[in-house]
Amino acid sequence: MAAQATVGSPFVSPPAAFDELRIRLAEVSDVQHASGLLFWDQRTKMPPAGSEGRAEQVATLGRIAHERFVDAAVGRLLEELRPYEDSLPRESFEASLIRVARRDWEKATCVPPSLTAEMRRAGALGFRAWSEARAASDFSPLAPHLERNLELKHRYVACFPPAEETYDILLDDYEPGMKTAEVRAVFDELKRELIPLVRAAGLPEPTPLLELPRDGQERFARRVLDRLGFDERSWRLDETAHPFMSSPGSGDVRLTTRWEPGLNWLFGAIHEFGHGVYEHDIDPALARTPLGGGVSLGLHESQSRTWENLVGRSRPFWRFFYPQLQDAFPEHFGGLSEDDFGRMTNRVEPSLIRVDADEVTYNLHIILRFELEQELIDGRLEIAELPGAWNERFEEYLGIPVTSDREGVLQDMHWGGGAFGYFSTYSLGNVMSVQIWERMLVDLPELDEQFARGEFAPLRAWYGEHLYRHGRKFTPQETLELACGSTLDAGPYVRYLQAKYAAG
Amino acid sequence: MAAQATVGSPFVSPPAAFDELRIRLAEVSDVQHASGLLFWDQRTKMPPAGSEGRAEQVATLGRIAHERFVDAAVGRLLEELRPYEDSLPRESFEASLIRVARRDWEKATCVPPSLTAEMRRAGALGFRAWSEARAASDFSPLAPHLERNLELKHRYVACFPPAEETYDILLDDYEPGMKTAEVRAVFDELKRELIPLVRAAGLPEPTPLLELPRDGQERFARRVLDRLGFDERSWRLDETAHPFMSSPGSGDVRLTTRWEPGLNWLFGAIHEFGHGVYEHDIDPALARTPLGGGVSLGLHESQSRTWENLVGRSRPFWRFFYPQLQDAFPEHFGGLSEDDFGRMTNRVEPSLIRVDADEVTYNLHIILRFELEQELIDGRLEIAELPGAWNERFEEYLGIPVTSDREGVLQDMHWGGGAFGYFSTYSLGNVMSVQIWERMLVDLPELDEQFARGEFAPLRAWYGEHLYRHGRKFTPQETLELACGSTLDAGPYVRYLQAKYAAG
Repeated sequence: MAAQATVGSPFVSPPAAFDELRIRLAEVSDVQHASGLLFWDQRTKMPPAGSEGRAEQVATLGRIAHERFVDAAVGRLLEELRPYEDSLPRESFEASLIRVARRDWEKATCVPPSLTAEMRRAGALGFRAWSEARAASDFSPLAPHLERNLELKHRYVACFPPAEETYDILLDDYEPGMKTAEVRAVFDELKRELIPLVRAAGLPEPTPLLELPRDGQERFARRVLDRLGFDERSWRLDETAHPFMSSPGSGDVRLTTRWEPGLNWLFGAIHEFGHGVYEHDIDPALARTPLGGGVSLGLHESQSRTWENLVGRSRPFWRFFYPQLQDAFPEHFGGLSEDDFGRMTNRVEPSLIRVDADEVTYNLHIILRFELEQELIDGRLEIAELPGAWNERFEEYLGIPVTSDREGVLQDMHWGGGAFGYFSTYSLGNVMSVQIWERMLVDLPELDEQFARGEFAPLRAWYGEHLYRHGRKFTPQETLELACGSTLDAGPYVRYLQAKYAAG
Repeated sequence: MAAQATVGSPFVSPPAAFDELRIRLAEVSDVQHASGLLFWDQRTKMPPAGSEGRAEQVATLGRIAHERFVDAAVGRLLEELRPYEDSLPRESFEASLIRVARRDWEKATCVPPSLTAEMRRAGALGFRAWSEARAASDFSPLAPHLERNLELKHRYVACFPPAEETYDILLDDYEPGMKTAEVRAVFDELKRELIPLVRAAGLPEPTPLLELPRDGQERFARRVLDRLGFDERSWRLDETAHPFMSSPGSGDVRLTTRWEPGLNWLFGAIHEFGHGVYEHDIDPALARTPLGGGVSLGLHESQSRTWENLVGRSRPFWRFFYPQLQDAFPEHFGGLSEDDFGRMTNRVEPSLIRVDADEVTYNLHIILRFELEQELIDGRLEIAELPGAWNERFEEYLGIPVTSDREGVLQDMHWGGGAFGYFSTYSLGNVMSVQIWERMLVDLPELDEQFARGEFAPLRAWYGEHLYRHGRKFTPQETLELACGSTLDAGPYVRYLQAKYAAG
């Protein structure tokens, strides 16, 4: 795979096949972005009666993008372009485009379209069954859909060359190149260190949820986002039920949040900002190519977690913003010191629901899922045994009993929708976030003072230079190394949590 | 083309070719609806920096929809389905689908894709040149783009079998089946009757524009729309710079308006409601087929004009709403009688800008454009002579001088964007609106009393039954006859205007 710049390369300008490949890939990218807009609109703007027609549009655009990409002509172009690729430096735009497109193409063409369609259909039915099962807090109607999803996953896995572990192939869809064994090693270390940390924290007194006025929430969230780098020329913020970030085109980044009691409306918005700034600051030259996106779910999550936790829950951040928060909500914060506020937003508190979990316990929610889904895939656990296994292990890791399936095994949509291998990327993101953060601190020793003055541009510029701009040019592992100089390592994250919470 | 229900038809259920045709057409419809969403979003929600990427997405989806539709396989299916079509009643869903798809396919395949692409490109460049020319009130930079658009239009016309008049072929894109001679006859009658009506009205005293608070505008507009039949399950209302209606899928109707001084924010919203209710009330069985849309621009405009003018500017309408308007804006309307308000919203007042024109003078704006664009197409008028010809004829028809090209020949985007033959559909809509209204009054003699009680459901149901539900099943001419029992006729519209305005 190594390649060097060849002096006197026979290719002065890209061959015609390269232009043709670019055009074909650009069309696929356009259709995918249009699909992204269909998704964003469905969850923020679409009137409910539009949902049936919208489902058809989503299916059609997904099929068209897939068909156009797996076209045999794309394979021929990729083959024809091998000598050209070999004549170029590996990190060049052209070589990267060909390399990454080939990897995507080879993966996509392994799977027969009929199986892809079956999986999509089973996922849609499973998602619907999950919604109903969760509403009724009754696992049984979901069970046959999980069986079906697992059966299809085994057929999917069989499309690829055998891997060391079956789960490797599922993981690769979300964190390309990552091995189950590496994740397991990292998660085992996390588990070993975090369970005692949680136990030591004990159960804090419950505090009543803050009820801040909705208009004030939005005004304050926008003020914070503006400071971080949100700019109406290329960003939006809208309300939705389950927050997400979407970038349905270059220069177009859309955050969502949910106005609600507590402070999650704010930390959620900052979390999505982290996803958004990654997409926004990818080199614009990569637009409309397969290189123009975040490189893996783990690295994406590393950035949402960076901005939410390492920036947004830090003391220097609130040195700047806390007086403004007090001004915005004097009734609620007028009498609360900055220190007490800092403790309030950084409590370790075991709870049942993953998406509401704090920085420390969050990882235990993930490790639980990571272990259970491997056991399911490997046949060591039956679907019927899943709720029991969930409840037992949850109490073991988090120290509190699960009171209902709705707040237990039914809380997440992923498995019903057919996503196995996805969950681990959340904690991988946490781990990577601190690895990169430590490296960044070497270059930006004045960071705390900058935050306290409300200056976040230096931080954003550092991440742009060392991470965001690369898009998908390199593998996730290469990208991580470019950003922090090392491979996946739980050490920095564990030390960070211990320093922050063990004292507490 | 006539067909009868055949007893003992050899086709008990649709042949496989019909199902295949439906699937292909449904995919095209899905892509077109996705394009519709790209358009709506661009004009209401998209951050400005997204515009370059969006233009690529729009071009790609347009190309894909076109390519998939003109595919030779679609032509073969249509050919294969002739005997099936002939075995069915003409008005059946299946026969209509095949008939309309064939007409669309034959038209679309006449034009080489390279010419379509060139026209689209020239239109995009011309649109940009128009924006700049208008901003500078300088016609000259637009002129070469108009030359280019006209040249391409001649190449476009040459793709089709010769017509009686060149302009017929352009008109057919917007009002299928309509002949220039028919329009000319109707417009000549309008011109003969309306110029004296405008002259007799004279120039009223200018009244200062109302400045109503923005929030109050939106609240009142929503209150009116709710009464008319807007319902959040399937409708939206958003703000935009140049209002339009978009229905990017079945059960999904989106109105736009502009909050501004005067009352156009309200009449504009009601106008778009008329477009929206037409789309919304098409038989849902026609969704995802070429039959699931309004049948022509003229008939579409007849409905926006019906709801805006025949409903929204009527006395019985305001009998119900005027007290609510007074409540909403007591400072502005508290001291104004319902009669005075009625006169205020129904004034004949020649003005320079088409989109601000009243019910009577509006048609003269259109007739001017209709005549000029025919002369351009036929070579009787040079592009360079256009501004002069515009100004001269404008004063002749409307009695006021044109003070600048910005408020004259540069006011509309249509010609710069490459649309010739479009304008006439606005006045055709006015004419048809009163033809259908007269027929409706026979069936709904209690209409005034219903309006005065705020009841608009009977009116909507009548239009649904007699017009909306048909979608594109029949030709525009057949559709008009189904709704009002006669062919295009200026008489009812002229009598309506005379009765309403000649009294003065």
